Amino acid sequence: MNEGANLSHLSESDQPRMVDVSQKAVTTRTAVATCVVRLGSELLGSMSDGELKNKKGPVLHTAILAGIQSTKLTSQLIPLCHPLPLDSSQVEIAPLDSHSLLVTCTARTTGKTGVEMEALTGASVAALTLYDMCKSANPAIVISDLKLAKKTGGKSDYLSPA
Amino acid sequence: MNEGANLSHLSESDQPRMVDVSQKAVTTRTAVATCVVRLGSELLGSMSDGELKNKKGPVLHTAILAGIQSTKLTSQLIPLCHPLPLDSSQVEIAPLDSHSLLVTCTARTTGKTGVEMEALTGASVAALTLYDMCKSANPAIVISDLKLAKKTGGKSDYLSPA
Amino acid sequence: MNEGANLSHLSESDQPRMVDVSQKAVTTRTAVATCVVRLGSELLGSMSDGELKNKKGPVLHTAILAGIQSTKLTSQLIPLCHPLPLDSSQVEIAPLDSHSLLVTCTARTTGKTGVEMEALTGASVAALTLYDMCKSANPAIVISDLKLAKKTGGKSDYLSPA
Amino acid sequence: MNEGANLSHLSESDQPRMVDVSQKAVTTRTAVATCVVRLGSELLGSMSDGELKNKKGPVLHTAILAGIQSTKLTSQLIPLCHPLPLDSSQVEIAPLDSHSLLVTCTARTTGKTGVEMEALTGASVAALTLYDMCKSANPAIVISDLKLAKKTGGKSDYLSPA
Amino acid sequence: MNEGANLSHLSESDQPRMVDVSQKAVTTRTAVATCVVRLGSELLGSMSDGELKNKKGPVLHTAILAGIQSTKLTSQLIPLCHPLPLDSSQVEIAPLDSHSLLVTCTARTTGKTGVEMEALTGASVAALTLYDMCKSANPAIVISDLKLAKKTGGKSDYLSPA
Amino acid sequence: MNEGANLSHLSESDQPRMVDVSQKAVTTRTAVATCVVRLGSELLGSMSDGELKNKKGPVLHTAILAGIQSTKLTSQLIPLCHPLPLDSSQVEIAPLDSHSLLVTCTARTTGKTGVEMEALTGASVAALTLYDMCKSANPAIVISDLKLAKKTGGKSDYLSPA
Repeated sequence: MNEGANLSHLSESDQPRMVDVSQKAVTTRTAVATCVVRLGSELLGSMSDGELKNKKGPVLHTAILAGIQSTKLTSQLIPLCHPLPLDSSQVEIAPLDSHSLLVTCTARTTGKTGVEMEALTGASVAALTLYDMCKSANPAIVISDLKLAKKTGGKSDYLSPA
Repeated sequence: MNEGANLSHLSESDQPRMVDVSQKAVTTRTAVATCVVRLGSELLGSMSDGELKNKKGPVLHTAILAGIQSTKLTSQLIPLCHPLPLDSSQVEIAPLDSHSLLVTCTARTTGKTGVEMEALTGASVAALTLYDMCKSANPAIVISDLKLAKKTGGKSDYLSPA
Repeated sequence: MNEGANLSHLSESDQPRMVDVSQKAVTTRTAVATCVVRLGSELLGSMSDGELKNKKGPVLHTAILAGIQSTKLTSQLIPLCHPLPLDSSQVEIAPLDSHSLLVTCTARTTGKTGVEMEALTGASVAALTLYDMCKSANPAIVISDLKLAKKTGGKSDYLSPA
Repeated sequence: MNEGANLSHLSESDQPRMVDVSQKAVTTRTAVATCVVRLGSELLGSMSDGELKNKKGPVLHTAILAGIQSTKLTSQLIPLCHPLPLDSSQVEIAPLDSHSLLVTCTARTTGKTGVEMEALTGASVAALTLYDMCKSANPAIVISDLKLAKKTGGKSDYLSPA
Repeated sequence: MNEGANLSHLSESDQPRMVDVSQKAVTTRTAVATCVVRLGSELLGSMSDGELKNKKGPVLHTAILAGIQSTKLTSQLIPLCHPLPLDSSQVEIAPLDSHSLLVTCTARTTGKTGVEMEALTGASVAALTLYDMCKSANPAIVISDLKLAKKTGGKSDYLSPA
Repeated sequence: MNEGANLSHLSESDQPRMVDVSQKAVTTRTAVATCVVRLGSELLGSMSDGELKNKKGPVLHTAILAGIQSTKLTSQLIPLCHPLPLDSSQVEIAPLDSHSLLVTCTARTTGKTGVEMEALTGASVAALTLYDMCKSANPAIVISDLKLAKKTGGKSDYLSPA
């Protein structure tokens, strides 16, 4: 634990609160989150180079757009997130190995608070949408290793340990 | 692949579409999804039996409520999901081992289409909220093994392998 | 307390939950809520029969529409409310005395759960909008006596004790 | 009436409009709103020191979170409110007397327009959620005295008369 | 005017209201709306058979998904629309002539009220998204001829005159 | 095409993306959009000077408010739009000729990106709401000529070619 036994979203009397950022500096803040979607080798193979090849484009576009849209809805989903404008929101989906896709979401704002939750939400919702698009072919898809990969522009930078 | 090379959310010309369920039967449909949140043993220990003990209640309540709320927003997040009323939405969070919590979301509707995406979204957003509540103590939390555990009430039931 | 020491929105382990209504009967359910907006006699007089007379129409229309819209957003505002379709939503605003308006919201659904929260939310948001529309003339407006006036169609009817 | 017979949300031809704030100064603006929730002495007593004691925490957390979330949705609820980022949003709930709770919502932004409506909406929705959480025990709960308590940081400060 | 001088969304005292449909029959109701997007021959040509050919797929997918998503948000956009579940929502985009695309949105519900506004909103938002996707190439794109093409399943069917 | 064969919302690999505006200048940006609603001469005449005269006010107010509200929801409707605060949003509706109304929406922000889509969405939704309010009298209403009329404050100004 890098800041002691402190949970900043709880007040001194342990009630949920939105942290007051009014005195924080306005900087350009970026966060990157990633997760892995294990489609299975049969489904992924069919999309890369088989029967489902023509479907890969629309499947990825749908997931990318859902991920981007969700970065705009993050403060409605995560109760103590600040509502904020975004300078940029990007989702990339690329093969990780023969049975998995890697989803990467990058969010950026110029403001007083970071966008980790926006990046994590964007990666999650893109992955959930991949599940939704492919579940008629394989309902056993698993989403794993969702984590904050990197954060810059705030009080301290962060880089995921491996 | 249990239904051949078919992705039901794409039309014959491979355009995204919402599946027409107007002819499907109205039944009570339930879905259960789970995921694992690896808080780390230091943080989880502190919440179970240490300095952060008083904070565990509000942290879990916040995550549970966020998960439930997100099951109502699922059709806004997942582009081709049907908007539907819910009969029930429940999120449970319990220790899995010394460093992880297991999040379980159960969604239920009486309607023409299943609620897998609602359950998966609810588990995801509850897990993301746990991350948000605890990230000041440990930003390296990882969310894993998000999957559909069970589905009943539709054309065919589903039970996760393992 | 008419049902003993029971709060139906908490589970046996006192965690927040959405009540499971899957086994309840589908009936036509109506709820009526009211509240009082004390604009002050100067402002209300000016709108009824003075300088602001032409402004009364647009002020009331704005409040009525905001109230109706909020009955559709109730399940996004109140965490454990069921999302449901509405058969009807109506807001009426009428003079109560020389300095106050009475706001009445009536919501109706055909479903498995009542619409008390929709009616109460609709009356609240219509009243808040009256405040917003009139605050440049009088920021000391007070909203009072928000209550459930009547409920029919569920397990038991309810009529406010005067 | 402190600004004459003027309703700033109506144009010269009495049509609803969002006030143009593009020329106003960016300042840190804070608003505080309060309201009273009359739970009744039986229910409040049971939650303070009786059968419902274990339920008080989750009930208050749910109401606090709903209030905070609603301050982020205010511009969707109140038609002529400006959409804006928030620096802070806080809801506190404390006993007022033997049968009532006092709800206080404080909202803060750094921007060109005030956050009175955010604070009033936050207090309202927290109160409505208390109603929802407790209505199975007492449907006759009344919400009263919703008002702007204080406003600072804009063209002129405001303090509620008593 | 096919129903005399009657506007069903206004009450007898000319106040906006949501029509009460609680007594109407539950039927499967379908509506189709269309509009024309005049991209210009240079841009459309480049997308059909020129430099922008590879961009056509993602542009159309984005517009289709935005249109479908908006049919789910219709009751939040159109103040007196009933919130309702949808059985189906589909958007198709096809060349109309050398400089224009035809957007067609089909919405379907099983319920007590029609989905004209859902279909019209879906066609509009798909067209607006085409504008957004292409405005860097041609900001003079015009959207025209948005109309209800067909409606079935309600009290009376409707077919657009030509 | 004023910027060559470039669609800024697609990445180099033709995937949808939100443009990164973090390096752009903060300026006051205004956009104006217009469209035409062909109500028909019978309906428009009846509202101007006939049986429906008393209904014109509430019909226009409803459409104006819906248009304004939609400018706040634009980034939820148009997938690659940036979420941003608005300084102003205005909708005006005026007779164009004996059978049509002209809808004009003006949006303004102080930020790093323009508000064309907000203005276009506001005009569209106001027009859709006019359709909804009047469809019981005339379902054959057509919405046409939706276009960007003017844009100022960005890298380059734009004025519609007549």
